[in-house]
Amino acid sequence: MTFVYAAIACGLLAVVYGFVTSSQVLRASAGSEKMQDIASAIQEGAKAYLGRQYTTIAIVGVVVAIIIAVTLGITSTIGFVIGAVLSGVAGYVGMNISVRANVRTAEAARTSLQGGLTLAFRSGAVTGMLVAGLGLLAIAGFFWYLTGPAGHAPNDRIIIEALTALAFGASLISIFARLGGGIFTKAADVGADLVGKVEAGIPEDDPRNPAVIADNVGDNVGDCAGMAADLFETYVVTLGVTMISIALLVRASGAELLGLMSLPLLVGGVCIITSIIGTYMVRLGGGSIMGALYKGFFTSAVLSAFAIYGITKWVLGDLGAVIGGEGFLDASSDALTGSVAAAATTGAGFTGMDLFWCMMIGLVVTGLIVWITEYYTGTNYRPVRSIAKASETGHGTNVIQGLAVSLESTALPTLVIVVAVIATYQLAGVIGIAFAATAMLALAGMVVALDAYGPVTDNAGGIAEMAGLPDDVRERTDALDAVGNTTKAVTKGYAIGSAALAALVLFGAYTSDLGAYFPAIAVDFSLSNPYVIVGLLLGAMLPFIFGAFGMTAVGRAAGAVVEEVRGQFRDNPGIMQGTSRPNYGRTVDLVTKAAIREMIVPSLLPVLSPIVVYFVINLVAGQGPAFAAVGAMLLGVIVSGLFVAISMTSGGGAWDNAKKYIEDGHHGGKGSEAHKAAVTGDTVGDPYKDTAGPAVNPMIKITNIVALLLLAALAAGA
Amino acid sequence: MTFVYAAIACGLLAVVYGFVTSSQVLRASAGSEKMQDIASAIQEGAKAYLGRQYTTIAIVGVVVAIIIAVTLGITSTIGFVIGAVLSGVAGYVGMNISVRANVRTAEAARTSLQGGLTLAFRSGAVTGMLVAGLGLLAIAGFFWYLTGPAGHAPNDRIIIEALTALAFGASLISIFARLGGGIFTKAADVGADLVGKVEAGIPEDDPRNPAVIADNVGDNVGDCAGMAADLFETYVVTLGVTMISIALLVRASGAELLGLMSLPLLVGGVCIITSIIGTYMVRLGGGSIMGALYKGFFTSAVLSAFAIYGITKWVLGDLGAVIGGEGFLDASSDALTGSVAAAATTGAGFTGMDLFWCMMIGLVVTGLIVWITEYYTGTNYRPVRSIAKASETGHGTNVIQGLAVSLESTALPTLVIVVAVIATYQLAGVIGIAFAATAMLALAGMVVALDAYGPVTDNAGGIAEMAGLPDDVRERTDALDAVGNTTKAVTKGYAIGSAALAALVLFGAYTSDLGAYFPAIAVDFSLSNPYVIVGLLLGAMLPFIFGAFGMTAVGRAAGAVVEEVRGQFRDNPGIMQGTSRPNYGRTVDLVTKAAIREMIVPSLLPVLSPIVVYFVINLVAGQGPAFAAVGAMLLGVIVSGLFVAISMTSGGGAWDNAKKYIEDGHHGGKGSEAHKAAVTGDTVGDPYKDTAGPAVNPMIKITNIVALLLLAALAAGA
Repeated sequence: MTFVYAAIACGLLAVVYGFVTSSQVLRASAGSEKMQDIASAIQEGAKAYLGRQYTTIAIVGVVVAIIIAVTLGITSTIGFVIGAVLSGVAGYVGMNISVRANVRTAEAARTSLQGGLTLAFRSGAVTGMLVAGLGLLAIAGFFWYLTGPAGHAPNDRIIIEALTALAFGASLISIFARLGGGIFTKAADVGADLVGKVEAGIPEDDPRNPAVIADNVGDNVGDCAGMAADLFETYVVTLGVTMISIALLVRASGAELLGLMSLPLLVGGVCIITSIIGTYMVRLGGGSIMGALYKGFFTSAVLSAFAIYGITKWVLGDLGAVIGGEGFLDASSDALTGSVAAAATTGAGFTGMDLFWCMMIGLVVTGLIVWITEYYTGTNYRPVRSIAKASETGHGTNVIQGLAVSLESTALPTLVIVVAVIATYQLAGVIGIAFAATAMLALAGMVVALDAYGPVTDNAGGIAEMAGLPDDVRERTDALDAVGNTTKAVTKGYAIGSAALAALVLFGAYTSDLGAYFPAIAVDFSLSNPYVIVGLLLGAMLPFIFGAFGMTAVGRAAGAVVEEVRGQFRDNPGIMQGTSRPNYGRTVDLVTKAAIREMIVPSLLPVLSPIVVYFVINLVAGQGPAFAAVGAMLLGVIVSGLFVAISMTSGGGAWDNAKKYIEDGHHGGKGSEAHKAAVTGDTVGDPYKDTAGPAVNPMIKITNIVALLLLAALAAGA
Repeated sequence: MTFVYAAIACGLLAVVYGFVTSSQVLRASAGSEKMQDIASAIQEGAKAYLGRQYTTIAIVGVVVAIIIAVTLGITSTIGFVIGAVLSGVAGYVGMNISVRANVRTAEAARTSLQGGLTLAFRSGAVTGMLVAGLGLLAIAGFFWYLTGPAGHAPNDRIIIEALTALAFGASLISIFARLGGGIFTKAADVGADLVGKVEAGIPEDDPRNPAVIADNVGDNVGDCAGMAADLFETYVVTLGVTMISIALLVRASGAELLGLMSLPLLVGGVCIITSIIGTYMVRLGGGSIMGALYKGFFTSAVLSAFAIYGITKWVLGDLGAVIGGEGFLDASSDALTGSVAAAATTGAGFTGMDLFWCMMIGLVVTGLIVWITEYYTGTNYRPVRSIAKASETGHGTNVIQGLAVSLESTALPTLVIVVAVIATYQLAGVIGIAFAATAMLALAGMVVALDAYGPVTDNAGGIAEMAGLPDDVRERTDALDAVGNTTKAVTKGYAIGSAALAALVLFGAYTSDLGAYFPAIAVDFSLSNPYVIVGLLLGAMLPFIFGAFGMTAVGRAAGAVVEEVRGQFRDNPGIMQGTSRPNYGRTVDLVTKAAIREMIVPSLLPVLSPIVVYFVINLVAGQGPAFAAVGAMLLGVIVSGLFVAISMTSGGGAWDNAKKYIEDGHHGGKGSEAHKAAVTGDTVGDPYKDTAGPAVNPMIKITNIVALLLLAALAAGA
């Protein structure tokens, strides 16, 4: 139990760090009265939106909680509630600090770039550490309760079900938050741009634009709160599924099992410490902004490697001793033959050193994804420049080249993931894949910090513009914001990459659960089974429909914003003359309602799909084919979701930065025809990268977790 | 052997129909001297391009033929050469009639819409019947030779290999033709539009635009020759794989087997007759143009249903007798349990009536895909109108809505295919799926006719514009062309839908071949095998990279066109004044070179991928995992390719028709801001629907066939 206590202590440390750093951020000057006025309008809008969003989600949550209580019992219900509530808290806290840091960043940027960077990054770090810390506390605390006071064995079915329910709670909230926030932010952004920049010819963030506050609110509720909930979910699911897969697959004594199951928690714990150290290394020191952020990231990563080694040795003792692992294979009904390496992991187990190397592979994958994403979305490389160049010949060629880049950007991350799967599987079977994913997510505190800093600087720029601060302030915040485009894309690539690994582990849990719950039904997962193909196709379809929903929702809501703003301009001519203040609140309110209305159906899609597929195929062909189709669906959704998500998030980032590259004076600069084309590309990329693309990550996991809970519910009902 | 002779007779009938109808088309007036001048410039360009394309392909083809000769022997090499040459011939003939029909259609449209429709559709029907006829002759003739004069048993390994090689020949040519032609046509189209419509402000098809002939050449070499080669390939592969799967999976006497293997040939044969009858039903009769085409299509489909019943009864005699079929399952190493229906097909066989119903399902799938495609690309329905509406708020929202439609358009076809897979599999196992695909392809003559008519009308419009014919001629050809956008999208949805069914059958052939060639290696195709996941991911990656290549190639080549045209305008100011003639030939030449250069690497991607994956995984993990990964790759490529292809082709068609809908006077009509935005969407959709999207179909099949040949080569070498 010492291990679990240590992990809980690290989680508490993250919370303490969050409080201390928050108060540092809040102590900074909030600028002039005008700036504070603007900031408080943003704060109010963001709070009002999140309040309403959470009320809506709560209704769905209560219904789901009752269903879980009836089918799976009270322990799972508690798990579900913990996951759901803390996911919501993570989002809320992230939003809360960022709406206060934005104005302070604008004020700090008045004096220096370093000042702005420090403030924005610290507020991002608060969100990052709270996401990781709360995630760790949720899962470690619940695990402590279940194995301690409640007295269950670590691989008791009730623990597996309860951890799954906890993950489900986190996922359910996060898909709503990601999608609702994503629709809000992009509807406001696209709408404001169309009616302001394009129609009325006023600059971005001009205070005369009635949608300008909504646009800034969007950064906080979408890119900050939604992202935080999403990464909280990814963290909890990844650590949870690693523990579940150990419980399901490893045959060892109770104490040994407890230790091994605590290892992912401790890895998360020590990496919180290394991430906190890393945050203090983010300093300009003459180099680029990206360089400053990299310093923090790589410090964390390198320290984490050592910390992971130490903690693995502490938990497992002898790193050379073989642990009675079973690997992926015993979970399935058929044995893999013809492969020496695979045979080595079947039954023969793995060593602590194997696990250590798997975690190192996880860290390397994270580093490679950061690098690949920067290549595809940074202004220094071929892809973004090719889009900028293509803008010279018009809107059409800009979009064509952007789509080409977006399709291409999927290749390298896929190859990295494929190599990681093969290598970790050869080292330690499915447990190896799980630990690689855990090590990836252990850096979540740092990665979220890098991401959450972006919307703060974006808001700071908006406030600087609206408050009429000198041009050099805006230039500084713009420079910070450009890097934010890349870090935002990085987080999404990272989340979806880890999701691909986690999905394999979740599938292992699914097959293993099937064997445990329904030993009489031999399910054929072979590709020669047409129901497997049917499942793959239906799963692959989900990200496409989901993407269509997201894109349509943004288009529709943005259209409503355009109408509203046109109406305000028409009814109150004083707005454009600068003599009367636009009604910002009404626009915020409109986008709020639209986003909440539009988020419901697509969010329920992944929840209901596995259930519908199971019951329909069960009716037509029986339970065996139904389980096979649902299982294949879980992999189908990751097989296509990985590509859809990466292409959308990288493509969108590339479009955005191609515009910024032109604005920096290339291909004719601001106001040129190339710039107009680049604005079109940026608009197209907006819902791609901030609505549809990132929401694919929680969607994949929800589909998987619902399938696991479905098995448990069917078994309980049978 | 009577059955095979009958099929060959039907193939010959198609060729006769082609000759007779060609001469009818050629007998029509070719219009004024100016029109003939323009037409002959297009003819020369198209011939020059195809000549060079075929020379390049021939070099690749000879290399591949030598490799096949060395590894698989002379019979397979003959098969390869037949497939390759006839695929080339199908494309050449299609191009040849369409470059002659275009000017005659323009002339006929001077008097009436019916006249234009009849001429254009007849020339399309020539291409359609020759594609089906040559395909049938190739496969039936070769099968006759192998089982007759060469004296092999119908399920002899040499026949299976030879038919596979024949399919490979057809596929290899078709991927080059589809991609090369697709790059040519869209580079010329996009380039001409950008520099003409957008920069110089001259209308489409204005004779002052030096790229205008290249644009018209593109319609013939891409939409006509490339499409014909593609559908020839689809036809040959589908019929071939149906025969192969019978040979591999059905245990019956030699005579029974010969009959059953002839059935797909005869189904193809009788449907040529019903298609020919259908072509005579294409008449306006007061209704819409689409209605006239539908009359032809549905006549063929309904007659085909009766004809298929008759021919099945003729071949099998008692339709209630059970045939000793084995279904999908015995091909794999593991048995499916828990499913009554599946159990019924394992070993228990199927009846002639089961096969008949499977073929009826194939016809219904074709009808549904036609209907769904019309819904997503026709101007009368929500999707196209939503794009047109979104154009009002600018380029960005047009593209966002277009992408949303393109993502959404994948859902219904997938559901149709999923239902068809389940139903046909329950009726007759994998053989049932194969027969459904065969019935789909049996209508190829008619479907190609509908498609090939489009580029002819497109060209006719161009010629009318350039020759300065009265406006009402252009209006008539435009009306014909708008319907062409939908029929083009239909063919692509149909080809990819049938490819999804064929891919399942090909995978069955792969597993069955594995068992035959490498009985000692038990390959695990279960989804719990990580090498299966690796294969699925790598396969799913291919359409994305391939799409990126296609989009980039068009962008790059279009850029070169823009530079060339700008240069001509600069060096020769007389062009814009209409006093001197632009150098059309130089532009055609430039696009030719660019298209041929750009087509090579992406075309080799699917050829080399299975080979590389096999050898790399074999090195790392052994032969079992390598075979598993390659097998999974075959399904990964269809699982993602289906979505990539449908989203691109339907989305592109929708964008094109949204523009046409606005040009018809909606949302401000021609010249409005909405129209400009719609032009952008159309430009984006161009490479989507005519380059990258359609080439995914032959790509999927190549990957599959190369894998089959790899097995044979490895077995021969082992």
